[in-house]
Amino acid sequence: KGKEQILILSQKYCIGAIHFFSGLLTRWQTSAPAIRTPSSSNSFSQNIPSSLWKLGRLNHVAIAVPDLEKAQSLYKDVLGAQVSETVALPEHGVYIVFVELGNTKLELLHPLGEKSPIASFLQKNKTGGMHHICIEVDDIKAAMTELKKKKIRILSEEPKIGAHGKPVIFLHPKDCHGVLVELEQA
Amino acid sequence: KGKEQILILSQKYCIGAIHFFSGLLTRWQTSAPAIRTPSSSNSFSQNIPSSLWKLGRLNHVAIAVPDLEKAQSLYKDVLGAQVSETVALPEHGVYIVFVELGNTKLELLHPLGEKSPIASFLQKNKTGGMHHICIEVDDIKAAMTELKKKKIRILSEEPKIGAHGKPVIFLHPKDCHGVLVELEQA
Repeated sequence: KGKEQILILSQKYCIGAIHFFSGLLTRWQTSAPAIRTPSSSNSFSQNIPSSLWKLGRLNHVAIAVPDLEKAQSLYKDVLGAQVSETVALPEHGVYIVFVELGNTKLELLHPLGEKSPIASFLQKNKTGGMHHICIEVDDIKAAMTELKKKKIRILSEEPKIGAHGKPVIFLHPKDCHGVLVELEQA
Repeated sequence: KGKEQILILSQKYCIGAIHFFSGLLTRWQTSAPAIRTPSSSNSFSQNIPSSLWKLGRLNHVAIAVPDLEKAQSLYKDVLGAQVSETVALPEHGVYIVFVELGNTKLELLHPLGEKSPIASFLQKNKTGGMHHICIEVDDIKAAMTELKKKKIRILSEEPKIGAHGKPVIFLHPKDCHGVLVELEQA
């Protein structure tokens, strides 16, 4: 009977450990893409002192499209991606469709209202095109301070609340080799 | 002594289980972004029958730049990303710098040689710009067959070996609302 007790105790301990690792597994599975250790971003590729903020994962690639339904259908029916319904964001002057790609997402944008920030882009790019990329940062205020010091122009004095309800800034495309870069507080 | 043996055996079993889960953890940590269950891509957003191939994760966003060193410095020294050395790929007519963002990467491209596929893009976009997005697929041949049926033009008759040594195809930007879409065999 003594042996049985030890076995049961050991099994309990073992099951506990398995649960612990299963828990870790689930947690890492969902958060793994965002994890950046200080060593991974400051190792061989960097010799400068660690800054006060860290660049994170690619939140999305935004694509401006002249026909939202057709674009939605391309990603859903032709390419087989998981695609959201159309979401109207009048305060941002856009309709959005989210295309889920597993590790990140595409955001299909279409103008809403007269002051839409993507209207002029679509006038220049009639068939549509890649509009911006959005990268997460852990401290948007610290990022702004450092980017200003390094002469990267920011398109607003203060962060604005972006389409996901989080503070965002946009960097001047001419300071980012032609790419409109959005930074979003993670 | 019998009890001790049982304890040792149980511990061995336990440690084995922990190793098993640790292994899973490591494996999932690196491959998690690519995992797409059939239910996640065919649930509420799709009513069409499951196709023979599946769209996967965003492999990279390619950005053509007129000055590779400056672009490299922007992502490394200003934005603090983990950035590779410059890699010359003469068979693809490009120099590449990889910018690691945790969940996916940016690829900074600069022309190499006279027949570089990005030379004309940079002539039209002097400051640089987003060139294409690359999405992984689990079966590129099946994807080609279905895309042809659905009247999406593919820029080559057969898949080519891409910059990562895997078969790739490019879809016509006019059939993808202005976006050059690369599909890469995962």
